Parts: sequence; C-alpha cells; structure tokens
Amino acid sequence: MPGEFDFIDWVRRQQSSSKTVLQPAGDDLAILKWSADDLLLVGVDQVLDGVHFDSSVHEPQAIGRKAMNRNLSDCAAMACLPAAAVISFALPHGVGVDFAKQLYQGIRQAGDKFDCPIIGGDTGSWNGKLAITITILGKSAGIEPVCRSRAKIGDQIYVTGPLGGSILRRNMEFEPRIHLARQLAKNFRITAMIDLSDGISRDLPDICKGGTVGAVIHANAVPIHADVSKLPDHADPLSHALHDGEDYELLFTSPDHIPPNLATPIGQITDGNAVEIEISNGQRLPLQAKGWEHPL
Amino acid sequence: MPGEFDFIDWVRRQQSSSKTVLQPAGDDLAILKWSADDLLLVGVDQVLDGVHFDSSVHEPQAIGRKAMNRNLSDCAAMACLPAAAVISFALPHGVGVDFAKQLYQGIRQAGDKFDCPIIGGDTGSWNGKLAITITILGKSAGIEPVCRSRAKIGDQIYVTGPLGGSILRRNMEFEPRIHLARQLAKNFRITAMIDLSDGISRDLPDICKGGTVGAVIHANAVPIHADVSKLPDHADPLSHALHDGEDYELLFTSPDHIPPNLATPIGQITDGNAVEIEISNGQRLPLQAKGWEHPL
Repeated sequence: MPGEFDFIDWVRRQQSSSKTVLQPAGDDLAILKWSADDLLLVGVDQVLDGVHFDSSVHEPQAIGRKAMNRNLSDCAAMACLPAAAVISFALPHGVGVDFAKQLYQGIRQAGDKFDCPIIGGDTGSWNGKLAITITILGKSAGIEPVCRSRAKIGDQIYVTGPLGGSILRRNMEFEPRIHLARQLAKNFRITAMIDLSDGISRDLPDICKGGTVGAVIHANAVPIHADVSKLPDHADPLSHALHDGEDYELLFTSPDHIPPNLATPIGQITDGNAVEIEISNGQRLPLQAKGWEHPL
Repeated sequence: MPGEFDFIDWVRRQQSSSKTVLQPAGDDLAILKWSADDLLLVGVDQVLDGVHFDSSVHEPQAIGRKAMNRNLSDCAAMACLPAAAVISFALPHGVGVDFAKQLYQGIRQAGDKFDCPIIGGDTGSWNGKLAITITILGKSAGIEPVCRSRAKIGDQIYVTGPLGGSILRRNMEFEPRIHLARQLAKNFRITAMIDLSDGISRDLPDICKGGTVGAVIHANAVPIHADVSKLPDHADPLSHALHDGEDYELLFTSPDHIPPNLATPIGQITDGNAVEIEISNGQRLPLQAKGWEHPL
C-alpha cells in the first residue's frame, strides 16, 4: 500500500534546480544562492480544515491553490515577487496518496503562475485533521517593499476591487494581486498596503496602528461585489463589503492620484487614531471590526 | 477573554530587528538583508500531537523546544548556522493564551541557544489537534553545506553519539549538534551527513541512495546508549540502537580519521547498493529498516 515515503519520493521528483535554487528538496535543507541586490522577505501562512476550507466540500486541488494563493497574496501586500516556497502537510490517516498529490498539484498550479518553485517540505500522517502550512520567500526585485506602517495624514485610501460575498466562491478561488501591486509601487508613492483577508474593518486598523493615524471611509465609495446580492442575507450590502473578509484585494494608502482602472478611492487617512465610516448624511460612526476572534 | 489577537500582539512584542532582520513580524512578511557571502538554506519541519509528542503528557515548553530543535538539527546535518525561523501554530480551541505563550517560550529557548531569532508566524485556532510548523533559514557562514549525496566508496561511516532508547527522554530533550557539525566540516572532509531522526536503518539508506553506494555497519562498533538497558524490552540492545530513531545524533561519512572524542566509526561505504550489517562471526546481513511507514 503506498504510503508517506512514496508521496515524498514523488514530491522530490517534481522539483528541479535553477540559478537561484542550487539544490531543492531531498536533503535536510534546500540550498539557495540569494542575489545581493534583493531583500529577502519571509512569511508563513497555514490553512486548517474547518477554518479556511472544508475538506468535506472542497476539492484537494482547490485547497492547495488557496493555501498557496494566501501566501502569494502576502507577497502582493509587500509588492515583492515570490521566489520559492516550502510546504508542510499534516495529512489525516487514510486520505490516500492521490489526495496528497492533488493537494500538491493545487499548490503547484498557483505557484507556477508566478514562477514560484516549491523547494522543500515535510509530510506527516496523523490521527488529526488536514492542515497545510506554506512558508514563502519573496524578493524585492527592484522595488522597495511596501510596509503597513507609513500611512500619512491626508493620504487617500484605495482598494483594488469590489468587496463582499467572497464565501460564494472567491474565498477559495482568488487571484493574488502581485502584478498590480508591483505596478502601483513602481509608479506611485504607496505609503502602506495590506491584503484584505479579514475585511476592511479588521485590516484597516492595522494600517492606522502602524502609522499612528486615523482613517475615515466614505460609505458610498466602497465598491460592493456583485456576489453580495446573491447572498441569502443581503439586506445590508455595505456591511458585507466592510466585514466579510477573504476578498484578497489590496487596501493601500497614497498621496497620489491613482487612475480609476487600478484602484478605487474610498476614504482618507486622518489625524488621531479613530477609524470611522462617514455615512450619507455626513455623520461619522466608529468602524467597528465584526466577525470572530477565537478565544484560545 | 483573551484570544488569538492578544497572543499575536504578545508574540510581536517579543521580536526585535537587527542588522540582518530589517523588520521582524508585524507586517505581511518579515524583511531580511541577506549577506552575499552566505548561501541561504531553507527547510520546514512540523510536530504533530500524537506523532511527535503527546499533549496529554508533555509540557508545552518541552513541545516547543522539540519543534525548534528538530529544525536546528537539520541545520546541524548541513553544517550551517541557523539565521532565523518562522512559526505556525494550529491551536485547539480552549488551550488558553498561557499555553500558547509557553509553546512560544519553548521555541524561543531552543532558538536563543543558537542565536536564531523568530521573525514571523501565523496563529490559527481550530477544532483540531495541536500542530506546530517551523521553517528555518540557515546560512553557510564560511562552511560549504554538507549534503547527503557525496559519500564515496571506502569512506568511513561515523556517528556522533550513542543510540537507542530515546523514547525515555531524549526524543523530547536533545541538543542539536550544530557546533560539532561545524567543527567537523571545518576540519575534515565530510562527504555526506544526516541527522538521525528515523534511526540508522532508515537514514543510512538515504546517504547510500544519494551517493549511489552501499554500506556495511559493524554490529559490535555501534555505540549503544545507556538508556536502552532501562527499556522494558531490552533483550536486543543493538536493535534499539539501529531502529529506535529520534537520537538526533549525526551520521556522516569521511575519508579522514576523525578523533574518537568527536565521533565513533561504525562501518564503511561499499561498492554496490546493499546496506548491510556485519555480525560478530563476519556474516553480513541486510540492514532492513524497521519501524513504521503510515499508509496515506
């Protein structure tokens, strides 16, 4: 019966070396030659069954793609290029080698779109649920990384696409905004940027805290995704756009005028530390984070 | 009630920047300035409840230390220095913030011993079991990485310490052999090296496959750990030394004479591809891997 080691051998055969990757997986560690011109960016993101996907509903390739795309979206948020990734799989006993290969292929499909090779990994089989952890290495490649921390009073706040209702499909199938992020960072002064994984109401405060500033969002300026109208509960579309999360569009600040084909202005950075929403009559209300925070 | 975000804020406050780490966790990705003189080594290793530890028995700090030390042991196996690590935690609902902090502190204790900062991470809470995944970045720091793949016919096979019975304690509390590995690789021709996580009978074949060579181990030369005699089942001590695993000593090959205070010679690399053990009467038997491989 094929087991862990068959899968691991198969994974190793998927990998090849390159100018950057002197030696991919197959040893204790992969070996890279890093260009002195490039800053090295590193981050990790996991997807857990029942939290980020549902293994009883979603296909393994879609789960793999999401795992990788969340990491690629982090590269977009920093305006860097992905350079390589390492993966760990915690596989429930009995999933089968084909299932594991499909997970891998989903990861690979997402990575290949951005020339991001998989260079190592760890596979474990356990009496537990499916978890995939991916660590991504990014390179600055001629563009200074965009952090969350430099928003300035008076900056415009922009978003790169319509928001809300991602649960209908886009939370599993989204396109990391890497090319757009690079285009923005190359041509404009982008003072802070984040990818919208948790929704504006939770992610915008990170930019405000980072820059020790406040923000006001104009309610009627927030682009609402057409998917929101398809939700069973769509009486308050704006609420979905602000709080749903998992849109993986970019939220950023800039003192520059950004062309409307690239992003939509939705508000301004303000003095103080309040994060507010201005509704149609000009009244400003606190923009409170909704959604859940698990107690530990 | 304190939750995920309290823990994440706490983790961020533990971290600081340095000459190499321009910006640690707190943004989408950490930012490093990598020295052009250093090769970059990367690998990932996870520990899973019920496989690598038992959360009903082991203290969270011990679990954290093991998670980190397994990664540091991979650095030892390549004779590189650890440079930085990123962590992901999959925490069962209800473990509590103190438990999570103790996991982190265990990881930190192990990393601090080798000046390996934690520069990023991801925390998730789920209706699943505890899993910790650590990705380690290593730097060559003046010593060419030692791979598994260059053992030559006639090389001596060495091991850096006595083996067997790790389950009594050492599988949770072991010392990564980083300093010894660097000393060996700096002063001798080390042709292949691996850390003994799965036992000689499973790890030596990786060196043989890597170099397309065979090996013979001399039964009476294998150093047996004193712990073996304390096992309930200790009728065949050699079997424990060959198959138990989780010793995290180094197994390596060299054409040089290695001083006995550094390592013990236990056999030779041979022509062909057989991995054998020579017993006291001179007879050679196949050294077959024992232990388990989970079907997937």
